[in-house]
Amino acid sequence: MINSKLQQIWYGGDYNPDQWPEEIWQEDMRLFKEAGINVVTLPVFSWAKLQPSEDTFNLGWLDKLLDLIADNGIYACLATSTAAQPAWMSRKYEDVLPVDVDGRKRTHGSRTNFCPNSKTYRRFSRQLARTLGERYKDHPSLLIWHINNEYGTHCYCNNCAAEFRVWLQSKYGSIESLNAEWNMSFWGHTVYEWEEIVPPSNLNGDNRNFQPMALDYKRFMSDSILACYQGEYDELKAITPEIPITTNIWGLFNGLDLKKWGEAMDVVSWDSYPQMNEPMGNVAMRHDYMRGLKEGKPFMLMEQTPSQQNWQPYNSLKRPGVMRLWSYQAVAHGADTVMFFQLRRSFGACEKYHGAVIEHVGHENTRVFRECAQLGRELGELGDRLLDSEIHAEAALLFDIDTWNAVEITSGPSVDLNYLEQAQHYYKAFYDQNVPVDVISPLSDFSKYKIIVAPVLYMLKLGVAERIEAFVKAGGTFVTTFFSGIVNENDLVTLGGYPGKLRNLLGLWVEEIDSLLPDMRNSIQIGEAFGHLAGSYECGLLCDLLHLEGAKAIGSYGTDFYAGMPALTVNEFGQGEAYYVATAPEQRLLSDLIRNLCEKHGIAAPFKASAGVELAQRSKEGEVYTFVLNHNASQASVELGTEAYSDLLTNRTVSGTVEIEPHGVMILQKTL
Amino acid sequence: MINSKLQQIWYGGDYNPDQWPEEIWQEDMRLFKEAGINVVTLPVFSWAKLQPSEDTFNLGWLDKLLDLIADNGIYACLATSTAAQPAWMSRKYEDVLPVDVDGRKRTHGSRTNFCPNSKTYRRFSRQLARTLGERYKDHPSLLIWHINNEYGTHCYCNNCAAEFRVWLQSKYGSIESLNAEWNMSFWGHTVYEWEEIVPPSNLNGDNRNFQPMALDYKRFMSDSILACYQGEYDELKAITPEIPITTNIWGLFNGLDLKKWGEAMDVVSWDSYPQMNEPMGNVAMRHDYMRGLKEGKPFMLMEQTPSQQNWQPYNSLKRPGVMRLWSYQAVAHGADTVMFFQLRRSFGACEKYHGAVIEHVGHENTRVFRECAQLGRELGELGDRLLDSEIHAEAALLFDIDTWNAVEITSGPSVDLNYLEQAQHYYKAFYDQNVPVDVISPLSDFSKYKIIVAPVLYMLKLGVAERIEAFVKAGGTFVTTFFSGIVNENDLVTLGGYPGKLRNLLGLWVEEIDSLLPDMRNSIQIGEAFGHLAGSYECGLLCDLLHLEGAKAIGSYGTDFYAGMPALTVNEFGQGEAYYVATAPEQRLLSDLIRNLCEKHGIAAPFKASAGVELAQRSKEGEVYTFVLNHNASQASVELGTEAYSDLLTNRTVSGTVEIEPHGVMILQKTL
Amino acid sequence: MINSKLQQIWYGGDYNPDQWPEEIWQEDMRLFKEAGINVVTLPVFSWAKLQPSEDTFNLGWLDKLLDLIADNGIYACLATSTAAQPAWMSRKYEDVLPVDVDGRKRTHGSRTNFCPNSKTYRRFSRQLARTLGERYKDHPSLLIWHINNEYGTHCYCNNCAAEFRVWLQSKYGSIESLNAEWNMSFWGHTVYEWEEIVPPSNLNGDNRNFQPMALDYKRFMSDSILACYQGEYDELKAITPEIPITTNIWGLFNGLDLKKWGEAMDVVSWDSYPQMNEPMGNVAMRHDYMRGLKEGKPFMLMEQTPSQQNWQPYNSLKRPGVMRLWSYQAVAHGADTVMFFQLRRSFGACEKYHGAVIEHVGHENTRVFRECAQLGRELGELGDRLLDSEIHAEAALLFDIDTWNAVEITSGPSVDLNYLEQAQHYYKAFYDQNVPVDVISPLSDFSKYKIIVAPVLYMLKLGVAERIEAFVKAGGTFVTTFFSGIVNENDLVTLGGYPGKLRNLLGLWVEEIDSLLPDMRNSIQIGEAFGHLAGSYECGLLCDLLHLEGAKAIGSYGTDFYAGMPALTVNEFGQGEAYYVATAPEQRLLSDLIRNLCEKHGIAAPFKASAGVELAQRSKEGEVYTFVLNHNASQASVELGTEAYSDLLTNRTVSGTVEIEPHGVMILQKTL
Repeated sequence: MINSKLQQIWYGGDYNPDQWPEEIWQEDMRLFKEAGINVVTLPVFSWAKLQPSEDTFNLGWLDKLLDLIADNGIYACLATSTAAQPAWMSRKYEDVLPVDVDGRKRTHGSRTNFCPNSKTYRRFSRQLARTLGERYKDHPSLLIWHINNEYGTHCYCNNCAAEFRVWLQSKYGSIESLNAEWNMSFWGHTVYEWEEIVPPSNLNGDNRNFQPMALDYKRFMSDSILACYQGEYDELKAITPEIPITTNIWGLFNGLDLKKWGEAMDVVSWDSYPQMNEPMGNVAMRHDYMRGLKEGKPFMLMEQTPSQQNWQPYNSLKRPGVMRLWSYQAVAHGADTVMFFQLRRSFGACEKYHGAVIEHVGHENTRVFRECAQLGRELGELGDRLLDSEIHAEAALLFDIDTWNAVEITSGPSVDLNYLEQAQHYYKAFYDQNVPVDVISPLSDFSKYKIIVAPVLYMLKLGVAERIEAFVKAGGTFVTTFFSGIVNENDLVTLGGYPGKLRNLLGLWVEEIDSLLPDMRNSIQIGEAFGHLAGSYECGLLCDLLHLEGAKAIGSYGTDFYAGMPALTVNEFGQGEAYYVATAPEQRLLSDLIRNLCEKHGIAAPFKASAGVELAQRSKEGEVYTFVLNHNASQASVELGTEAYSDLLTNRTVSGTVEIEPHGVMILQKTL
Repeated sequence: MINSKLQQIWYGGDYNPDQWPEEIWQEDMRLFKEAGINVVTLPVFSWAKLQPSEDTFNLGWLDKLLDLIADNGIYACLATSTAAQPAWMSRKYEDVLPVDVDGRKRTHGSRTNFCPNSKTYRRFSRQLARTLGERYKDHPSLLIWHINNEYGTHCYCNNCAAEFRVWLQSKYGSIESLNAEWNMSFWGHTVYEWEEIVPPSNLNGDNRNFQPMALDYKRFMSDSILACYQGEYDELKAITPEIPITTNIWGLFNGLDLKKWGEAMDVVSWDSYPQMNEPMGNVAMRHDYMRGLKEGKPFMLMEQTPSQQNWQPYNSLKRPGVMRLWSYQAVAHGADTVMFFQLRRSFGACEKYHGAVIEHVGHENTRVFRECAQLGRELGELGDRLLDSEIHAEAALLFDIDTWNAVEITSGPSVDLNYLEQAQHYYKAFYDQNVPVDVISPLSDFSKYKIIVAPVLYMLKLGVAERIEAFVKAGGTFVTTFFSGIVNENDLVTLGGYPGKLRNLLGLWVEEIDSLLPDMRNSIQIGEAFGHLAGSYECGLLCDLLHLEGAKAIGSYGTDFYAGMPALTVNEFGQGEAYYVATAPEQRLLSDLIRNLCEKHGIAAPFKASAGVELAQRSKEGEVYTFVLNHNASQASVELGTEAYSDLLTNRTVSGTVEIEPHGVMILQKTL
Repeated sequence: MINSKLQQIWYGGDYNPDQWPEEIWQEDMRLFKEAGINVVTLPVFSWAKLQPSEDTFNLGWLDKLLDLIADNGIYACLATSTAAQPAWMSRKYEDVLPVDVDGRKRTHGSRTNFCPNSKTYRRFSRQLARTLGERYKDHPSLLIWHINNEYGTHCYCNNCAAEFRVWLQSKYGSIESLNAEWNMSFWGHTVYEWEEIVPPSNLNGDNRNFQPMALDYKRFMSDSILACYQGEYDELKAITPEIPITTNIWGLFNGLDLKKWGEAMDVVSWDSYPQMNEPMGNVAMRHDYMRGLKEGKPFMLMEQTPSQQNWQPYNSLKRPGVMRLWSYQAVAHGADTVMFFQLRRSFGACEKYHGAVIEHVGHENTRVFRECAQLGRELGELGDRLLDSEIHAEAALLFDIDTWNAVEITSGPSVDLNYLEQAQHYYKAFYDQNVPVDVISPLSDFSKYKIIVAPVLYMLKLGVAERIEAFVKAGGTFVTTFFSGIVNENDLVTLGGYPGKLRNLLGLWVEEIDSLLPDMRNSIQIGEAFGHLAGSYECGLLCDLLHLEGAKAIGSYGTDFYAGMPALTVNEFGQGEAYYVATAPEQRLLSDLIRNLCEKHGIAAPFKASAGVELAQRSKEGEVYTFVLNHNASQASVELGTEAYSDLLTNRTVSGTVEIEPHGVMILQKTL
């Protein structure tokens, strides 16, 4: 349990009372209770108010506010307010302001607009965290610490350059080693002194041209920002060792090494902002990814919008029921909180058209408020039943931020190659079949799984190939694709033939990689039906030209000069088998392939359901809770069979074929 | 009359004799007379020639030139030449050069490339204006002063930052007041000293994120540039109080607060550069906008091209007759001058492919010259008849630069929301019916009108809602749309329910605003026919979800979860009525709606005419002049009825159904 | 012969052994011999390794390497390695780093990232060239010097600004002359001291607005960079007067005045990187252009890829046979070398996915290696037969970099006007008929040709019109188009009527130039059939409105207000005739027009062949070698008639109709 003080799925969100007069605070308390809200995140952006000058703190208003919420039975996700430094700091200490990738010194403003290696910033942010920690360490409303907000701004200032050299010295030891590990003889980049190293940026183009350096700079930036987080963490942990600490990740993005960040948090939290027409499988995958950051532990849904957003090109309303549906989807995938940005809408500046529980009209008689209040009631009624329940997946998707970065900045073979998209295609194949998936890292424990799928496993870090081999030898099924096994963690090619260290496991050699023009297509012809795989499938993007070295061809190319060459293979290896998808096929092939694998391993959806109905399960103390999520805007059904189940949201007992309303949700527990 | 020295529609334009040897000047005089040209604008870009060094003036060439034109019966629109400072100034005084929105210090070159808050620039530009004023105050050719040229470059230098703080102090008085009026508690932007305020720019993103600050910076820039103008104005006015002063506005754009600029001019002048395939209603609206800047007084068409332009992507020729047609359109909408850029084409640099009366061939035997000469003859023959004649509109379109800026930089709800486009749609509904429209500001006198249409009246400045209410109470018809009444002049939301202070007048409450994806459409269903409104109309972009509070629904949404909710309403209020168009409908609905309103108020086109034939009227001393403008490339007709009219351009008497040639023009006056 | 040491078509390419351990060097020697490789280009990017500090040189490794290749019978295209300066230099001497067009000081990294006017760079690059020259002047493997690599980076630093003023003083003599030649009175740009001149850049917009200045800055940059080259050249030439010197041009681009560069080289070399789906005529034209840089002398194909590239959006494999086909195409157009980038693939940084003779797998058992080895064998067997053979063209395409730049930066009349594309259309008309073309400059000897085509001869440099007139008078056929004869070499318009100095020759006057919107089309109607020209052809882009002054109209416009005006004319002039194509017609018209001209002059393809089969000839000592290049992916044929020919690649004797395989090549020599 994240904090045993509040034994239900936490419900609430970002609250900015310092933008409002105190008379509004009272009204907010009434409305929060009306909506079943029991946790408020604050103060997220109040540093200037908390510390009006270098030597002055002003916490009285916050004292009053925290007392007020405590009096109203509400808890605080207490934020350290360090994401936007006060103007006096930027003005007095120039090192606080970052330099962007184009070499422009930023001026004060916006947010997350600080240099992560600024000694000034580090000192003041720790001081503020310590000040808040000491002041509120015993406050009854304190539930969890929320450090900063959506970290992620990279800096290219001279101070960062100097720290980068220190970081490199620590990583590589000697300049000779760095020259070798970065292949610095390329284009005559050999350096002889550490001071000769310059950050890769748009000012020299090495952020696109010199991948080893560019990747290390990204890692260094992630570490630099993490050190900011860690500074605040250490202050708070020393004062309140028992209070969990988090920071909200703003989504599945590649600007930070999120796996490392997950490890540095007591509980992972993140902000989920799907676009209106985004495939729901992508959203599910992001939840699973966040759950994977702490190897399956429940996470916090720190932010979602009650209805529309403001920063998308088109900020549509969430249709009736959709906010509730997506909230339960988060819970189904491991969230133990449902929280909003924002509880009350700002009336000025850029987030004033972002949805809120309390809209500009200011009262509760709105569709959005009513939906929020209904959900609040339901979560209250669910109590602690679902807290800490677990998700058991026998299939895993291997996904890695470093690999993402490497694929993104590599030069060639195709600008259309998108690592995230490829992963989403494979995830979707499981998701559409209602088979649970863990999203894991190269360092995760593989032994828990029967199937591991690693699309575009371009970068093979030290030991990973060996661990995959062990997994397959022990009976596991492994699937990977074109453009895998190519480079090591510094983006240096593994010589001797693609896919490098996976060549033996996969039983093949990739001689060439063809990049198709956007309007070109090839096909994969399945010679002899292979389970669900049969006939012809379209493919494109990249086509490996490969030779079998023990593997068996399931399908081969239909056209071009490599017609007849293998395009889909399987290799028996130890007790298991390793598949290779040598090109980017249409979704139907992935679906048929994954269906084969699941059947082989006896993995199945809990029930049969209409298309667009998602089924997901969490279990705890022997009880299994099945979430039935109808993502359709029309009625759908699920076939429960002869067993009887209780729907926790309605207390209705159901069995057989059950209808579920548009955007409807059920949480089923087997009746005794 | 702009200046009684020249009692006809002025005809001429920009002339750059300093780019040519003196022998060409003589030839130009001959050609100008041949073309009926009686006014030349000069010297627009001759500062470097007029003042070759800080301490030297060189006006002899200009003396000679002005004498020459006077001798030839030609007048001068005498320019102050301050739009491009000499290179010696930029070199010696670095403060003259501006800093752009990306923080880049500009180098010398191009034009309007100066910092408006540069003390050096202000001093030297006043000095030059004074020097010219004193030298030519009694020159017989002096007709009007033309200050600078197409002002509009914004600057972000430190000097501007300092002046911005002074401007803010003067506007807000205290830092507390600024914090409140800008909602600076958002994202912790609270400041404690004026020096902490940093201009919003691309270096901090606050030009997009912090609307209150961004809007004020735009106003400050407009004021700063206006102070440059005012400095020159004051110098000239002190010397020649009787000579009118203007500066040419380069179009309907939102970089300056044009209404304020209009007030600072003795006569408004502007540069009209339609694209080849631009709807003519847009051009007409721009003329009407410029006329509105001085509440209906005649304006100057300072620049148009005789044929093609050079800076559009595709610079097509004006088809035969089109230059003449568009010239008369300008006059029909209130212009008392017809002037060109340029009289003789430059032979080097970026404007050498811009059309001119005298082309590179150098003689008069060109299509373009012949068309210019024909128009010159006609304008001469028209004499002073049309000068100072007025346009009587009973309908007005409310259009406001501040609102435009606010809509443009707001974050959400849809990137496709374009304030100008929405205004153009409503203008077109009148234009297509040949109903004259005044384009007015929120501060204009509303009592002159029967109908006021205010599309996307997003920003309601102080007192405007009350003035609209008074207008309707007194019997006026008011039309507004979605995304209206939302914010005050600092872009802070009026709390308590949209559309804020218009809610009572409109008799409704907008609960939510849905933003449609680009390919999504809804429809407006008219339940019971309402005048010309009947059946179903397509709509999109934004859809308000509203509740009636006294208003009557005329139409409602056809689909989506808000099907059946009102989409078009009318509220009786006092003696008048207020319409609300809750979404962006197809043009046909606007046409039918405006037709209803005009019929109700007895507003009608002067005649019936073919589609594409524009009718517009100016009146003076009891005489009404009806312009018949055939924008079609084919013959068309107008039905004059039984009355007889004289066409001032041909002296032909016409009545009944009259044919008008492709791109033809008539100016009809009732015969006695 | 480039160097009589190696009497066959040189075969090899870029080799970067300093990226590999020495044990790989030995293996490379084996593979090179296997592939028939006899020349390696190196060390292209080894400055940091060759000169690890300001005072130290480290040439031992290069000594060893050159000895090794000499021992293996391989020659060196010995590079000076100056394209990427060592980091210590950029760090110690800031003047080495350039400033980009946006005013950003670059940081160290990437390549060709130096200021060409840096005294430091000039000094050190000469020193390195001298050091290498003295060390290896007598080395048996030394075949040719290769200076730098793909020069072309422009700089806008203060040092360049100062040098620009010196360059201008030298060109114009006086500031008055500069003001006149640049038309500086436009926009008040008149300067009074040289120091007032500021480089045109994005910081002042004069790189787009002030064409005379912008063109001179481009020329100055080309000269500045050429001075870097010349510095190294002079050092090397002084030491090894008999060794040829080159630098590799990276393609047909307008960043350098390539004609001037051609003159500065002993032999022209260039890098050919067609995209997969690029029309082969464009590639042929580039070869012909490069051959023209030294008036027909053989050139070096310095770089091509054995298979895919890495920096295109889509880096497709070269299909089987295509590398060989394109290699022979280069030879057919005048190349005496076939060289690759790269011999062995790098394993790190941005070129690791660029094709190579030796791929990452490291052995010779690849499709790519086998194709390379086959070609190596063939070239060996061809021996010296083709070396120094010549190409006899009776038709020429006039193409000029300065004109290209001027058309590109001119403002108006159409953004779609692309000088290179227009030239390609006319080239294609010859290419598709297998008629050889020389690509010549305005200063080339015209008397060698029967036909000269000069599409968009926008800029007429001094004396060129007169030389064209002389050419036509003597019986030549000249073809030019719309937008010709407009400006002089400073982009100043020739007054008195377009097309300026060509008006008399062409017998017409262009009164106006219409720019068509992208979706607009007109047509050319051929009244009376004119040879192959008959019926109607589509046209667009720009349409000249012209009057005949002696010329005869062949075709006229089909629509718009200038329907019936001449659109295609011919003027008899002396013994010859001059055609004017007044608009951009469809390719079919150009084909029919060029067919007429060739027939008139008795110019014909050597044989009849299937579409897509290119025929090209080189001759030497009375022998004619006909290349038959099948660019089709399918079988094709050529009709040789009754004569018998020997195919040098197979020693097969052929005659009559001969089949040629997909992507196949023959080199035919008449049998005795």
